[in-house]
Parts: sequence; C-alpha cells; structure tokens
Amino acid sequence: MKAIPHFADIRMAQSRLGPWIHRTPIVRSRSFDQLCGALVSFKCENLQRGGAFKARGAINAVRSLDDVTAVKGVITHSSGNHGAALALAAHERGIAADVVVPVGTPKIKIMAIERYGARLHLCEPTLRAREDAADALVNVRGGTLIHPFDDPAVIAGQGTAALELLEDAPDLEVLMAPVSGGGLLAGTALAAHGMNPSAVVFGAEPLAADDAARSFAAGRLIQDGNRPTIADGLRATLSPLTLDLIRAHVAGIATVDEDEIVGAMRLFWDIFKLVIEPSSAVPVAALLSRRTPAFLGRRVGVILSGGNVDLDALPWMGHRAQGAGKPLEKPDGS
Amino acid sequence: MKAIPHFADIRMAQSRLGPWIHRTPIVRSRSFDQLCGALVSFKCENLQRGGAFKARGAINAVRSLDDVTAVKGVITHSSGNHGAALALAAHERGIAADVVVPVGTPKIKIMAIERYGARLHLCEPTLRAREDAADALVNVRGGTLIHPFDDPAVIAGQGTAALELLEDAPDLEVLMAPVSGGGLLAGTALAAHGMNPSAVVFGAEPLAADDAARSFAAGRLIQDGNRPTIADGLRATLSPLTLDLIRAHVAGIATVDEDEIVGAMRLFWDIFKLVIEPSSAVPVAALLSRRTPAFLGRRVGVILSGGNVDLDALPWMGHRAQGAGKPLEKPDGS
Repeated sequence: MKAIPHFADIRMAQSRLGPWIHRTPIVRSRSFDQLCGALVSFKCENLQRGGAFKARGAINAVRSLDDVTAVKGVITHSSGNHGAALALAAHERGIAADVVVPVGTPKIKIMAIERYGARLHLCEPTLRAREDAADALVNVRGGTLIHPFDDPAVIAGQGTAALELLEDAPDLEVLMAPVSGGGLLAGTALAAHGMNPSAVVFGAEPLAADDAARSFAAGRLIQDGNRPTIADGLRATLSPLTLDLIRAHVAGIATVDEDEIVGAMRLFWDIFKLVIEPSSAVPVAALLSRRTPAFLGRRVGVILSGGNVDLDALPWMGHRAQGAGKPLEKPDGS
Repeated sequence: MKAIPHFADIRMAQSRLGPWIHRTPIVRSRSFDQLCGALVSFKCENLQRGGAFKARGAINAVRSLDDVTAVKGVITHSSGNHGAALALAAHERGIAADVVVPVGTPKIKIMAIERYGARLHLCEPTLRAREDAADALVNVRGGTLIHPFDDPAVIAGQGTAALELLEDAPDLEVLMAPVSGGGLLAGTALAAHGMNPSAVVFGAEPLAADDAARSFAAGRLIQDGNRPTIADGLRATLSPLTLDLIRAHVAGIATVDEDEIVGAMRLFWDIFKLVIEPSSAVPVAALLSRRTPAFLGRRVGVILSGGNVDLDALPWMGHRAQGAGKPLEKPDGS
C-alpha cells in the first residue's frame, strides 16, 4: 500500500527542487478575463524545464531516493513528458534511467528521452505491455520504478507548481488543473488546501476521455470508456491513490469537448503569445465555456501543464472554416 | 527639418509611458545559447500591449502632444502594428484617430485598428497613395500626423524597450533589433549608447528587403530594390532621419534569407514556447547563422519586436519537408 502524500511533503519537495527547476511566471490578461467572466492567473509550466510540469515530480522522486537505492537507477513507462523528465532527473543525479515506450511513439518524444542518455525499451502499445516491460526491468536491474502519477513523491513534486502560484498570488479563491492520471490535480489540491483551507479546487478533463469525472461521480475507479482526444497528455486514467486524494480535496471536474479545446488553445496563443499544448487548453476551455458557476467572478488560478506541441500538426489546421464543426478524431486512435 | 531625438528623450519617454505599457520580461535559454555560440537575452515585446513594441512609440507621441494640439486628433498611415497602437494611444487619451490603410489589408489587422474606435480610410496599396490620403486628412481635420518611424517622439518611445533591457541586464555587450523603417533600431541604438557608450549595436534585416543594409553601406538612402519577404513587418524603408541615426550609432546590419527566418521562427517557438512573428525571427536567424563574428561569445541583447501572427497561415506549413527549399514568396507580392 502506497503512502499518502501530505502538504508537508510538498513543502519538502519545494526545498528539494530548489535549484533544479524554474520558478515559472504567472500571466494574466484583461481581454481573457472579460471573455470568461473571471479573474484568471495562469501558472506557466509550459515554460518549465522540459516544457512541462513533469520535471517537478520526476526530479523530486529521483532526489528523494537514498544513495544506495539511487545508484541502481530508475525505471518508468511513459511515452510523454514524464519519460523525458525522468531521464533529465536521472542524468542530473548521475544515475541510469530506463524508459519503456510503446512502438509508434513520435520521434520527437523519443529524442527528448534519449537526449539525457536514458535507455529506451520498445513494447507493444498497450498499458499492460508497458507495465509488464517496466516490471521486468525492475526485476533484472533492481532499480526503482518511478510511476508517472501513482507515486507519493511524484504527486508531492507536482504540487509545488500550485504552491508557487499561491505564494505569488495568495488571494486566489479557486484553483484548476487538467486531470489525466491525477498526479498534477492531486498535488495541486493538496497544495491549495495546505495554503488555504477554503480554496476551491477543480479538475478539467476532455469529455472524450472523462474517466476521472465519471470515477469522481461514481466514487469508484472507472478506467474504461475513454475515446480518443486531441489532448494527448490526458489519456491516462486515475489510480486508487489519486482518486482517493481527488475525492478528498476536489470540488468537481469540468469537461469540455474537442472543438472547445482546439478553440481555446488557438485563442490562448493569440492573446498571450504563449505556446501551450492541447492538454493545457482543457482548463482554458472550461473557463471560456462559462458552464462552471464556481469560476464566475472569482479569482481563479490555473496550472498550464505544458507547451510541447508538434508545430507541424497544429489542431486547427484544416479545421478553421467552421467554429462548430465535428469533433476531431485522434489520428492513430490508440 | 525634424528634430533629432537624444538619449534624454528616451528617459523622458520612459517616465511618460510609465503606467501605459508593460515592462516586458527577458528570456534566456542555455540550449539556444549553445546553438548560436553567444549568451543571448531576449526582450519580449511580443508580450507588449497590442503584441508589439509599437505601443511605446505611438503612446509616447500621443502623450507628448499639448492639450490644444491633441484635441484635434492624430492621423497615420499604417496597415500594421503602428496603426493599431496609435488607435489604442488615442483612445486612452480620449482623442480621435484616423488611420489610412491600403485595400487588401487582412481583416485581422483592420479589426485591431477598429477595436479602439479609430476611423478607417481605405486607399490604393502604394506608399504614395497612403501618404497623400494621410496628408489630405491632416489638411481637413487639422490633426497631427504621427508617422510610424520618421518621428522623434516615436523613435524615443521605441528606444525605451532597449532602455529597460539594459536596466535589467546591464552587462550586455551587443544589442540587436530588426530594421524596417528604422525607428526601433534608431531608438535602440540611442538607448544603448546612452546607457553604455561602448555597446555595439546591430540591425537585422531580411536579405530580400535589405534596403537598410544597402543604404548603410552606400551612405545614402536607397529605397528601391526590395523584394517580397515573409517578414511582413520589415517592408518599409529608412527615412533620412533614421538613416542618419543608424549611421551614427550602428556597427552593421546582418541579413538573413527567407528559409533562415522561417527556421529560426519555428526553432524559437519550440525552445521558448513563445509566439514571435517573422519580423522578430530575423535577429534570431542572424544569431543562428553565426555569420556575424561580433556576436560570438558575447552577451547579446535582442529586441523581439512582436508576436502578431496569423495562426492559420504559419510559414512552415507546406514548407516542412526540406530544410533548404526555395525561398518563400510573399503571397500578394506587394
């Protein structure tokens, strides 16, 4: 059974991370506030090292290991930002990293992982195959598995983004983060309630992959029923640990459709001149929809999760004529 | 004959602009520094009000008018960021603005001008027609013509970007700004030498529209011979005033081809997660080319001029297969 992270773990993570991460800026816009009817502060984790908040959790987890354990290396299965972040974290601690990625992972993500000298292991593109391959590596190498979200040290690390946000903007009333496996949202909620017990915390999720919203409503883990979404960082499902933390700390999970995500992403680029990835556009879209009364007229803080986008395949390309066309299909449907 | 702006005018502009503009941030990247062999600080005028440095010059010019003059309104001819910036400046001073734009100006630019209540006047798409239309308005209305760059108050306003940059990063050895009509480059050079007489100042210009480089080399104004360039903000030519200032203060003008501009723009987005327009990518490309020895190993400050990009028509779209394809043609060739 996994240890449950607490606010004190986020404070410890903050001091541990000190020199290894950027204190990312906060941006605001009167134009955007008028559009969504709230006063919004965006925490720019798209400007974090590696272009995503994932550096926080990965570095905290790697730096939390004692020397005897650390020297055996770290292992994970992730085709996305966590794999690259763990490679970076291991490289900077001078230990080995093994990263399992499914075949078909885009070359740009492979390169981000290889850049820091991690060993790559290809597997079939299923969650089961990924977990099996990672477990096999743990058995062979004796290293430590650092799960992308089902890990107290990772959750505590992710929570440091909200901690910084609330230090810099202590009057925020509502916090929102996108939800996939739930590590960022759980960490955000723990940080928010540690700083301000009356803060209201929301998740934001694509309607097409709304397992977290359904699990939250049902009070139990529901892991099937997700469909493809343009928000490629939000395709994982909650773990028992993250669901427990989210049920304890989160007021609700707002959902948005694919067209709303694409429209919000484009609008954000236009207004803020900042590149955010589709996953980050999910809470932006939730604000713009005005469907969640808890945001209206409030001071809302939003974690922008990352900015790693394939600039050759922007989602509004070939999608511009009508604002309300059909939902986008994810190209490979996996 | 126009008054020549001095460093003291930039200082006055800074105090005049105080509450009306953003103090934009500076960004740096170790990855980028390795690629170009210099230590680069980018001043983010893409995050300025209106998405470009133009707010500085326009607001300074409008705020410099005495009340009797101001109440008659201001007039300009500009289809680009200056027209919108002047509309904003006039709106905030509560005076009228008339903006002459050529037919065929993209709707998004028209909307940016109209947003602040400026009166629009269409004319034929030639510099002569624009100037004639603006002069006619001056005669009819009695307002003040605020030229996009051939104006001491505009030049002094643009110089405040470099002033802020050097206040925040006083150890910079080299400064670079893109050059079109020369207002930004002249203001940058005046600010640089006012702050640090030994600073070396460079302009950066598209090879396709290198009138400033040719004028600088010849020591006299050459206004013909420009071809289309993707850097839509850099199609104007120097005025006698800006050429004089540039000859007095600038060490050289680096030129880059169209492929270099597009490649630099895309690379910048990828590394910094910041949206910059093609004009801003021109000095970025000049650094990446490593053709200017004065940059190598130096602390270089670069003014990123703006971030107003048509996100539906990014220049690398349909241009991605080969890094070294043919130069791009500007769609309308004007």
